[in-house]
Amino acid sequence: MNDVIMTNNQPKAEVFLKKITAKKPLFVCTLGTTETGKISGISAAGANPEITDYTPPADIELLLLGRCKCINGVPVTPDGIPTPALVTMSALKLADIPALAVNAGLRVLPNVPYLELGAKPGKDIRTGKAVDNAQEVLDRAKLAGETLSKTVDYLVIGESIPGGTTTALAVLLAMGINAWGKVSSSMPANPHDLKIQTAEAGLKSLNLKFGALADDPLKAVSCVGDPMMPAFAGLVLGAAQRVPVLMAGGTQMTAVLAMINALNPQVLSNVAIGTTRWIVSDKTSDLKGIVNQIADVPILAADLDFSNSKFSGLKAYEAGVVKEGVGVGGSTIAAIAKTEGKITKAVMLQEVERNYSQLVSGKTV
Amino acid sequence: MNDVIMTNNQPKAEVFLKKITAKKPLFVCTLGTTETGKISGISAAGANPEITDYTPPADIELLLLGRCKCINGVPVTPDGIPTPALVTMSALKLADIPALAVNAGLRVLPNVPYLELGAKPGKDIRTGKAVDNAQEVLDRAKLAGETLSKTVDYLVIGESIPGGTTTALAVLLAMGINAWGKVSSSMPANPHDLKIQTAEAGLKSLNLKFGALADDPLKAVSCVGDPMMPAFAGLVLGAAQRVPVLMAGGTQMTAVLAMINALNPQVLSNVAIGTTRWIVSDKTSDLKGIVNQIADVPILAADLDFSNSKFSGLKAYEAGVVKEGVGVGGSTIAAIAKTEGKITKAVMLQEVERNYSQLVSGKTV
Repeated sequence: MNDVIMTNNQPKAEVFLKKITAKKPLFVCTLGTTETGKISGISAAGANPEITDYTPPADIELLLLGRCKCINGVPVTPDGIPTPALVTMSALKLADIPALAVNAGLRVLPNVPYLELGAKPGKDIRTGKAVDNAQEVLDRAKLAGETLSKTVDYLVIGESIPGGTTTALAVLLAMGINAWGKVSSSMPANPHDLKIQTAEAGLKSLNLKFGALADDPLKAVSCVGDPMMPAFAGLVLGAAQRVPVLMAGGTQMTAVLAMINALNPQVLSNVAIGTTRWIVSDKTSDLKGIVNQIADVPILAADLDFSNSKFSGLKAYEAGVVKEGVGVGGSTIAAIAKTEGKITKAVMLQEVERNYSQLVSGKTV
Repeated sequence: MNDVIMTNNQPKAEVFLKKITAKKPLFVCTLGTTETGKISGISAAGANPEITDYTPPADIELLLLGRCKCINGVPVTPDGIPTPALVTMSALKLADIPALAVNAGLRVLPNVPYLELGAKPGKDIRTGKAVDNAQEVLDRAKLAGETLSKTVDYLVIGESIPGGTTTALAVLLAMGINAWGKVSSSMPANPHDLKIQTAEAGLKSLNLKFGALADDPLKAVSCVGDPMMPAFAGLVLGAAQRVPVLMAGGTQMTAVLAMINALNPQVLSNVAIGTTRWIVSDKTSDLKGIVNQIADVPILAADLDFSNSKFSGLKAYEAGVVKEGVGVGGSTIAAIAKTEGKITKAVMLQEVERNYSQLVSGKTV
């Protein structure tokens, strides 16, 4: 399993990888939208800000149906680069890993089965009133996590929520974690200034200082977070008491990690972050630097490599577009682990290219 | 496993029971409501017709939370006899079986996580327009069934939908199955005349003769069925290609069975009906007589026996109240099978009494 990079806390990362090797996972995808994600220049998860409401439901339709139903084609960045859901779908197909959608605050609902937790779309964090019912969503998600932990060997939990690194930054700052200039971006040029300005506007609207909500993660989320966070954190809190959980995402995961660490740090012994090489080698962000302020949790990264792709839309991933999302890193790690390394980065690229060319030509994969 | 009765197609029943012995199930509960269920005298799943909207969500809250949230106390019949969810909960707890709720047309939503399939509450079948989007619900449920079949060894699928035997009767008649006077009831005095009158009014409203929709189960459901049916049938169709499925219910199951048999009879080799002794020994209905007109499917029955209970509310089950619902028979069979017979009918009664006395005194179980 050479194509899994261990970049933080290597001994623990190895133990985690061993625990999930040849085991049966469930991929759970938390899906949400916020008004924060529609601030111009914040997110590349959609060709334009207004369409970001359609990106998460389209992502999960692609995963489960092999094509999108709520939009034509597939979600793309403003430059036309395809959604990472294409890569996640390829990993899940190759390794026959089931996927479950979770409504973590969608405005547009997908045409597939999904788990309902009562989450609502997030508001603009600059209002200081970002998430309506964080406690309720957390409680329901915890129950769902407990249930799912009784069905499979472990969970891989991912997310699709445009603008998620900005809400993550705001929650991290509220909880006293130095994340200025450290969260990642789906764009090659990380708009740190805009993100910091947005996050700080949220804190200022409530007169909250850095670290003011270190012990109140639910208030931090309610004020300046997003609805994906309590859904994701609840799933981890419920499941990790019984089975390993791979938190599949980039720097957004750190806000969820901070919540879990404040609510029940014990479960973290069963938790790892699973991401991509594009995130851990990213010079414009610092996942490790944030994680190590919170908890001693390993980071695994899928060594996905599209540099030799024949498609420019995939090659662009190597230039720092997209990087993460829809659990692309974690699902690839799970596919590698389930097949004990039979799925390699070369196999992955081949499958992604196959699916990409079919989708570009308008076919169902 | 003496406490599982095999009442139809014994060799196949034995094979099925062997297949699920010591295996890991998931209990899936499809939940819906209809205006048909509110016709006076049709259903005892609620103290009065209007409150039947609350019975299914309250049932699943009881299963997952150990208490109801959307109502005080627990659902009861007009005579105050408690919901079979109390028994199902006891079985699932004893054998540590996870449960998943499915919205199969609820009007009142439960305060727990549930799988959303886009189903809407059913209308009065006398209008001939009972279910809005049967095909869509079936398709989504099929996808959900496929997903769930990749997580556990087998599925136990139950239902909670007041008035369900009347809609079942109507669908059976539309599909050409002689079910007059054969569907069961949650009341000791089975109101066959009222059910037949209601079902036939639905058929008459569309000028449909007996058997007119034998080859079109989705039209039968759309006209005179209920939203539980496409959700349930879709789950079975999706899951039974890969894992065994125990259809947990009484005569309502036969309408679902007729749908499956018309859509993809092959999967039935992986299917059994799991019910209670109260159903198979019921003189006012004939589960076996309906099943054997449709397909060669085994019937297992949990030999639940409350005749020696110290509580009159439980003893009433022996007089023909309730009989089935919320997958009580199937979940009990699954608990017996999972523990290889360590859970007996005596153990079950003890646990049911313990939970009953706690709930009666207002505690969470």
